[in-house]
Amino acid sequence: MIKHFLSLSSFSQSELLSLIHRAQFFFQNQHRPEVIHHLLQNRIFANVFYEPSTRTRCSFEIAAKRLGADIVNFVPEHSSVKKGETVYDTLKSLESLGVDGLIFRHADDHIIEQMKPFLKLPLINAGAGKYEHPSQGLLDLLTLFQEFEILAGLKIAVCGDIKHSRVAGSLMVAAKIFGMQIYLCGPDSLIPEVNEPNVQKSDFDQILPEVDAVMMLRIQLERHENLDLDPKAYHHQYGMNHRRQLSMKKNAIILHPGPFNRGVEISDDMVEHSQSRIFKQMNNGVAARMAILEWTMKGRT
Amino acid sequence: MIKHFLSLSSFSQSELLSLIHRAQFFFQNQHRPEVIHHLLQNRIFANVFYEPSTRTRCSFEIAAKRLGADIVNFVPEHSSVKKGETVYDTLKSLESLGVDGLIFRHADDHIIEQMKPFLKLPLINAGAGKYEHPSQGLLDLLTLFQEFEILAGLKIAVCGDIKHSRVAGSLMVAAKIFGMQIYLCGPDSLIPEVNEPNVQKSDFDQILPEVDAVMMLRIQLERHENLDLDPKAYHHQYGMNHRRQLSMKKNAIILHPGPFNRGVEISDDMVEHSQSRIFKQMNNGVAARMAILEWTMKGRT
Amino acid sequence: MIKHFLSLSSFSQSELLSLIHRAQFFFQNQHRPEVIHHLLQNRIFANVFYEPSTRTRCSFEIAAKRLGADIVNFVPEHSSVKKGETVYDTLKSLESLGVDGLIFRHADDHIIEQMKPFLKLPLINAGAGKYEHPSQGLLDLLTLFQEFEILAGLKIAVCGDIKHSRVAGSLMVAAKIFGMQIYLCGPDSLIPEVNEPNVQKSDFDQILPEVDAVMMLRIQLERHENLDLDPKAYHHQYGMNHRRQLSMKKNAIILHPGPFNRGVEISDDMVEHSQSRIFKQMNNGVAARMAILEWTMKGRT
Repeated sequence: MIKHFLSLSSFSQSELLSLIHRAQFFFQNQHRPEVIHHLLQNRIFANVFYEPSTRTRCSFEIAAKRLGADIVNFVPEHSSVKKGETVYDTLKSLESLGVDGLIFRHADDHIIEQMKPFLKLPLINAGAGKYEHPSQGLLDLLTLFQEFEILAGLKIAVCGDIKHSRVAGSLMVAAKIFGMQIYLCGPDSLIPEVNEPNVQKSDFDQILPEVDAVMMLRIQLERHENLDLDPKAYHHQYGMNHRRQLSMKKNAIILHPGPFNRGVEISDDMVEHSQSRIFKQMNNGVAARMAILEWTMKGRT
Repeated sequence: MIKHFLSLSSFSQSELLSLIHRAQFFFQNQHRPEVIHHLLQNRIFANVFYEPSTRTRCSFEIAAKRLGADIVNFVPEHSSVKKGETVYDTLKSLESLGVDGLIFRHADDHIIEQMKPFLKLPLINAGAGKYEHPSQGLLDLLTLFQEFEILAGLKIAVCGDIKHSRVAGSLMVAAKIFGMQIYLCGPDSLIPEVNEPNVQKSDFDQILPEVDAVMMLRIQLERHENLDLDPKAYHHQYGMNHRRQLSMKKNAIILHPGPFNRGVEISDDMVEHSQSRIFKQMNNGVAARMAILEWTMKGRT
Repeated sequence: MIKHFLSLSSFSQSELLSLIHRAQFFFQNQHRPEVIHHLLQNRIFANVFYEPSTRTRCSFEIAAKRLGADIVNFVPEHSSVKKGETVYDTLKSLESLGVDGLIFRHADDHIIEQMKPFLKLPLINAGAGKYEHPSQGLLDLLTLFQEFEILAGLKIAVCGDIKHSRVAGSLMVAAKIFGMQIYLCGPDSLIPEVNEPNVQKSDFDQILPEVDAVMMLRIQLERHENLDLDPKAYHHQYGMNHRRQLSMKKNAIILHPGPFNRGVEISDDMVEHSQSRIFKQMNNGVAARMAILEWTMKGRT
């Protein structure tokens, strides 16, 4: 059976916990090649990013290399895409070239589900459409696990452009599996209708004192261009800043998947505040992706 | 002596056969690192692609990595080319940087011959101009060898934009060396004059029942913009489809170098038809390029 | 302490000499993996180039790979920069991803100094702003060392667009440290005011017979667009050509950091003349960068 990594929803709580524990192991041993460098030796993954990305692409690349694997970067702009090749044909071509797994990002919401039945090698969702970004979901779980150990019952506020955020999508999937409470905050037009008992709309300032973590989201201007947004006004109403941080519990943490807009959804002084885990999340991302890459190769010859 | 890999025409039949056999060995062992990973260890090749390419660039990169070598990707757009550097100076610079071989693609028909005398490291033709694409030629020979074992006497139809196809160019060179019969089909304006006893113009539908293989070619719109082409009409007259496949011998195979235009030169249902070897060709491409890279390094310190 | 490699000015003469000797060792052993390939095994550097570059980027990449390290290429155009991310946040993100060092190029004159205090990993200046390009400076010193052994007292003419040349900047820093005499030549508007006892403006043709080396610089048209420059007239007044080469000492050498404009600052026949070390410099660049990368990792766990 091919071990695609497409959505956190396909994992049970105990399967996710063992991925988190493995990611924590990699976090602790990321600079100990003697422990980890042999694990995926001679594997070759392809990064297939139809949308730009620094963090995620490099994060997977470093994860692969730390485990002794290699990466081929497929950059659509320089390629047959210019000649009109379909995504299906590109992925089948890369499969035919004999790579061991495809790390795939695309703007289309449904393309992953369309491609999956046809592929004979693991497809790893590195952000497809606006619904899920499961490797980010795993790194967020790892970050919460390092902080609180027990995930069940955690209260998390998510604030910003939730409708267009695949990060929020994966967090909500994880919250359901682990029994975490999610509070959706931000402009009404950016909050989706979610019918889950553990998810509810909330007033940002009212809920902040009660949560264990707050995940700030970037206003993804490139995804909805008609938004009439004044950055200053937005920051005043929904931005993380000193005033709001003071209202949070002392052990509550600030998350952001990055890249962030300083002065819009988060003030300068909050990015590296002692309660912020933003750069820690990026470090955790490499560990989480090491766990994911290793998992996809299990039982594969 | 520097072992450039520039054209199939510089090889004898027995030299080509030993490259095919070696490629077949790599095909069979592509996922057995213990057998092949040490063969080019510590070699560094440069991919120097002045024209976009997915398959060929990645194919060489994976071939190199499977053999334990590494690749530096030189992307002209991000480079000194913007500052007006000539191809000669770029190649000499890469030579000076100490790479072991240059994998080179360029639109100019004559540039390979112009550069060759000046280089002290192997130059590998990954598609230069419109005449030859010898690594594709070798993978096509490998595919025919796997199917028929004996190449002499094979009958192959080539259909489409032959005039602008370096793939067809290399196939005709190989056909002469091995004594294969080539039938050129497609719109008159896209068929070159070839004066070789083993090459002749033919009517596509008339010759199809007699051939062992048919190589479909993409209409390379980017190479001749004045063509007034209706895709539907083209497909009707020259496209591979179910009706035409039925007229072929049961053991005849369909080839295409990719990327292909579905519905133009080939119908959807033919791409992965049981008589198609299109994705097999891509897999063979890695094996063929492993044989080529290894060959260029023989006797080199 | 973090070992940033930012400017030659932060090194003493004896420290620079030991870097030069180490680079010479790498020059002599560049193709002996058994001697050098283990030295930076399992290190991962990031190439972070905000300006295009063939030579420097590939040179660092090959240097890293020869030492057994790996490279992640961060290409700003395909990345979060499009989403408005600051340089600081990009560098901190790459730091968080756990890379071992950042090889950094940027057009801004002051950005290196601004970033340095905040980074917990070595920053390697691969050309920042218009003042310094210290890895080029080291390779120039290596080239002079191979030729003359003793650097003190050498006389070097620099000709061309000195004002916008970070290469000239680093050479002047090195000249001060080693007691070399520098003669600045070229159009008045392209020569900066330098108040150093060992640097003086000179007439190009008058000084040529006296110098040990002449460094020709490219007119960097992309950096000052208002220049009304006639290439032919420029070549006549300031270009290196056969007539000028004849006036030089027999053991004097011609340098150029590349990429060069043939027929402008240097004639065709001078590029590979027996007194030219231009392509040798590129080869030395890999050795110099191996010494630099190794140096930055010393004492680092």
